Amino acid sequence: MNAPDLGELAAQLRVDSLRCTDQAGTGHPTSSLSAADLMAVLLRDHLRWDLARPGHPNNDHLVFSKGHASPLLYAMMKAAGVITDDELLTCRRFQSRLQGHPVPVLPWVDVATGSLGQGLPIAVGIALAAKHLENLPYRIWVLLGDSEMSEGSIWEAFDHARHYRLGNVVAILDMNRLGQRGETPLGWDSAAYAARARAFGWRAIEIDGHDLAAIDAAYTEATSTSESPALVVARTVKGKGVWFLENQRGWHGKALDGEDGAKAIAELGGSRSLVVPVHRPADLVPEPFAPAAPLELPRYERGDRVATRKAYGDALAAVGAARPEVVVLDAEVSNSTYAEVFAKAHPSRYFEMFISEQQLVAAAIGMSVRCRVPFASTFAAFLSRAHDFIRMGAISRAKLCLCGSHVGVSIGEDGPSQMGLEELAMMRAVIGSTVLYPCCATQTAKLVAAMVDLPGISYLQTTREKTTVLYPDDEDFPIGGSKVLRESPDDSVTVLGAGITVHEALEAHERLAEEGIAVRVLDLYSVKPLDAAGIRAAISATNGRAVVVEDHLAEGGLGEAVFACLGGEEPIEAEVAHLAVTTMPCSGTPAELLRAAGIDAEAIARAVHRLLAEPACFMCGAPASWTIMLAGEDEAISEEYACDEHASGHRRITKWDGGAPAVPTHH
Amino acid sequence: MNAPDLGELAAQLRVDSLRCTDQAGTGHPTSSLSAADLMAVLLRDHLRWDLARPGHPNNDHLVFSKGHASPLLYAMMKAAGVITDDELLTCRRFQSRLQGHPVPVLPWVDVATGSLGQGLPIAVGIALAAKHLENLPYRIWVLLGDSEMSEGSIWEAFDHARHYRLGNVVAILDMNRLGQRGETPLGWDSAAYAARARAFGWRAIEIDGHDLAAIDAAYTEATSTSESPALVVARTVKGKGVWFLENQRGWHGKALDGEDGAKAIAELGGSRSLVVPVHRPADLVPEPFAPAAPLELPRYERGDRVATRKAYGDALAAVGAARPEVVVLDAEVSNSTYAEVFAKAHPSRYFEMFISEQQLVAAAIGMSVRCRVPFASTFAAFLSRAHDFIRMGAISRAKLCLCGSHVGVSIGEDGPSQMGLEELAMMRAVIGSTVLYPCCATQTAKLVAAMVDLPGISYLQTTREKTTVLYPDDEDFPIGGSKVLRESPDDSVTVLGAGITVHEALEAHERLAEEGIAVRVLDLYSVKPLDAAGIRAAISATNGRAVVVEDHLAEGGLGEAVFACLGGEEPIEAEVAHLAVTTMPCSGTPAELLRAAGIDAEAIARAVHRLLAEPACFMCGAPASWTIMLAGEDEAISEEYACDEHASGHRRITKWDGGAPAVPTHH
Repeated sequence: MNAPDLGELAAQLRVDSLRCTDQAGTGHPTSSLSAADLMAVLLRDHLRWDLARPGHPNNDHLVFSKGHASPLLYAMMKAAGVITDDELLTCRRFQSRLQGHPVPVLPWVDVATGSLGQGLPIAVGIALAAKHLENLPYRIWVLLGDSEMSEGSIWEAFDHARHYRLGNVVAILDMNRLGQRGETPLGWDSAAYAARARAFGWRAIEIDGHDLAAIDAAYTEATSTSESPALVVARTVKGKGVWFLENQRGWHGKALDGEDGAKAIAELGGSRSLVVPVHRPADLVPEPFAPAAPLELPRYERGDRVATRKAYGDALAAVGAARPEVVVLDAEVSNSTYAEVFAKAHPSRYFEMFISEQQLVAAAIGMSVRCRVPFASTFAAFLSRAHDFIRMGAISRAKLCLCGSHVGVSIGEDGPSQMGLEELAMMRAVIGSTVLYPCCATQTAKLVAAMVDLPGISYLQTTREKTTVLYPDDEDFPIGGSKVLRESPDDSVTVLGAGITVHEALEAHERLAEEGIAVRVLDLYSVKPLDAAGIRAAISATNGRAVVVEDHLAEGGLGEAVFACLGGEEPIEAEVAHLAVTTMPCSGTPAELLRAAGIDAEAIARAVHRLLAEPACFMCGAPASWTIMLAGEDEAISEEYACDEHASGHRRITKWDGGAPAVPTHH
Repeated sequence: MNAPDLGELAAQLRVDSLRCTDQAGTGHPTSSLSAADLMAVLLRDHLRWDLARPGHPNNDHLVFSKGHASPLLYAMMKAAGVITDDELLTCRRFQSRLQGHPVPVLPWVDVATGSLGQGLPIAVGIALAAKHLENLPYRIWVLLGDSEMSEGSIWEAFDHARHYRLGNVVAILDMNRLGQRGETPLGWDSAAYAARARAFGWRAIEIDGHDLAAIDAAYTEATSTSESPALVVARTVKGKGVWFLENQRGWHGKALDGEDGAKAIAELGGSRSLVVPVHRPADLVPEPFAPAAPLELPRYERGDRVATRKAYGDALAAVGAARPEVVVLDAEVSNSTYAEVFAKAHPSRYFEMFISEQQLVAAAIGMSVRCRVPFASTFAAFLSRAHDFIRMGAISRAKLCLCGSHVGVSIGEDGPSQMGLEELAMMRAVIGSTVLYPCCATQTAKLVAAMVDLPGISYLQTTREKTTVLYPDDEDFPIGGSKVLRESPDDSVTVLGAGITVHEALEAHERLAEEGIAVRVLDLYSVKPLDAAGIRAAISATNGRAVVVEDHLAEGGLGEAVFACLGGEEPIEAEVAHLAVTTMPCSGTPAELLRAAGIDAEAIARAVHRLLAEPACFMCGAPASWTIMLAGEDEAISEEYACDEHASGHRRITKWDGGAPAVPTHH
């Protein structure tokens, strides 16, 4: 197969970008046209893909950071012969693999893009794996839009690519000057982009992005070293090749109608069916994994006080020995999250991401593209910085293990800026996520080990303060389970907590026991999936009374998850006191802050008393001990509460006790 | 009052930084010591504060972007005489104004910091107000840590400060080389920071950050122009002034114990009580507001089809005419969010933030510091990029009006990367937030007008597709209310929706009516606060049966909010079908995607049928029409369902109908 003429290939890419958006009636043709020459040269002369083996370990990666240029990507795939022209024309249709923005249901697409500024930081993760784990020479090509250069995450990627000497990254900036609604901040100021890249330690090559020879020379230069990443600043024209689109505002994200489309395609010389014999990569294999040892999780003595964040680090180091595919990243707080324990044990698989939470998660996504199992940690509060990356990670079907430390008001004196109070809400609302919230070191270690094999995005959050080790070494903690920590047949209320509030619940249990009140205590370490059956059974067994207590805001966390599992189409009757953080915390000791938030043992005990308050007699208002069936003159029957005295003469049944048929008692 | 000696003042700042953290037993003294000389020169010779009038409109602003250096900030306040030594020593105690990280409960603190990389972008917002709205010459001084230079948001701020020629910003980089757990990526490479700043269009001045004369000269140079922001790159030593702390690892975020503390304070010459006569600013007043016109909200014809995002823009322009304190910011998608309508009507109060969602929200926070009412908009999905800034905005007690457009799968072909599916969860879990989700143009306009006067952070989300105008012009939409859109005494199920699902609910209502099934339809436009009383009343009136349907993930959104309001300590009995997005959407038409997600009219109708399915007879399993009281041999009474035939001979009461006493019927 002969290589097609580059000009012809570029024209085909343009025509196909128009054809597939024309048929869809939506899409971003003009953003595709500007980069067609850049991609034609790449596809024919520089990219290394074994088309027969999308899984070839030494294939180059191509990341469309400007994901809205997906028509161009799909046109490239047709030109490479990996999709048919028929499939090309399914673009943007329901259930087509060719979605509005790229998603990795399509081979050759590694990650979802479409939220700008994410492709380059993810490419940094892939490049880190190539250079520092696999020792493979494949390249990571990234097509950048100029609008997304305003995203800070882009500059986090520039910073890290320099720091880790990622000469395997070539970023191609399609500087077409026009964003969605107008000019970009830098317009066609190629020198400004180049200066920024150089200041961040990159090489920068400024070219005319429609000069095929200049593009070729730029790629050759960009790939000439292995130590320094390169930015090709390509001056381009949005809508290039179609006179009425070129450099015009108002065409972003618009497909052409039939007549305009036909004119444009005619101007570009009509449809073509060129196929490019893409170059194959060298048949190299990655550095083998280190040998795996049997898993030896850390062991903790029941009753000892160990912070769950410390157990996270200990367990991670142990898991790292047993599972060589595990890598760890942290955002410059590894001595707080205890990721440093792993870093010390397995330094070659630890990556410092500095204070760049977006890059932290993006690099982890990149590592997952290379089939690593990445654990990424920082303060839970600061994971919110990476929310959009986590969201997109789910669309990428990435496997990520995230850890947020320092959750809740119980962190104490550092104050609200450092408190993770919304991460259960954030992480529950991720499609397919698993959310874990251990309360003791032993449990943490077991859950960290389980995360390695969980699909999709899993999240575990840890507590700053030391907490008592509650479980024996041999306890299992299935995902979707819960643990009954205190139980008796007399239990009158179920108290449900997770993390630090489990310990408050246990203390409340002790206090209430002294008053003769027995409460059941449930540890909801698996926040998502939640142990609905276990929770419903426990609450039913305690007369439908429950207290759910969380060191988290009242919205989207443990409490609402419990409400959702009690309600639904087969609800159970339950009176539930929900204790959560509802007002802005301040600095203070952990005990002061738990008390101020109304989520400590005393608050739990108060809520239990509130739930247990006997109902008042329908006649005298005194504490009632009977439910009676009261028949009115019209034979209407109502249920009322009554005291011993006023219950006399009525049909009496004991108080409802959780679903079983009521048993009448005859005094 | 004579100005104190600078060296003595710096020593006092160091000593007080140590004293207040020593007493607290926690805090960041070493990060304070490195910047003490920088702040001494600033406080005595460059800052302009009218100490008697914290609200003086021409006061300089000082933002500790490295919020963990709060001990130094508090020491400056003591030296300025605005707090006493006694109060200084309350640092980090429960309910002290001097929290672990600065919060604006303290005069002279404008915003909460402590999540790194936020102070500078917020300063950009203040500076935009000063230069482009108020025409006041006050300066915004920002103390930056070197670790936070890894945050992309810092570079978003650099980019915008250049673009808007914010020569009123002086950023002081305390380049002490050491982050929390080790060296920063650039260490003491002053030239690298300076090169980056210059490449981003700033002036950069490199100095020894402990050379008092050099600091003074740098500030003088930095404030010499009004067009170009300046970065003072100050090489400093972490722990400066205490021999065993200087440039040592392992001391980040650690207070000294009594003995070390005493040694350190002695080395610094002991406690002092110098008071600085801080310079006063010129008595200037800001540009007056434009005259206000009466509010004339846009009017829409019932039955017309208008996208709520369009109504957002229309209303915003109208509100802008009536309320001159309103300003609008958008992240380069103003033609999608329709913020462009405001931009055209009030160009001097519109600020383009390009594709930088963190800077978008940070600038809005800065505007709120200057008592503007900022509306900031982008696609809802991309607001997740600014999650940490929104979280910190709540701690800052900022007034923000946020708008997220393009929510839900109903956006159609663009695919999941552009769909806002988690923003209700994100925005509900913000302390004090208001969350609004209008379904029609008229409602949108009214809610936008209401947002202007809401305290704290309010959020409104809009839909891409055109939807039918449902309400008349004169309808009011109180915050915390809901609307009954369809109602009859025969209603058997309540359908609750918001936004696009209200229209699906109305269609389901029509379809079901044709089958003779009446359903009530509630529009929950106020997602937080939720109209708990209205919802409970409606569901009770429809036999405890409800369908809640949302174009949002199942977690943390409308459904869980409804579950929480039905449950609690005074629950009502309800069977609730919850329809929400539970699997990853793809591209497609809005109708295809609503159907695939199971949240369209048909899915609602199916759920209604499911809820209405008659219970089966306890004897024969046929549809039951009676509840009977069944007394067993032991006189146990149970309630069972029965068909007409098998109900005979038993005491029969009609089916429970929502809480009212059951009425026996005698066939």
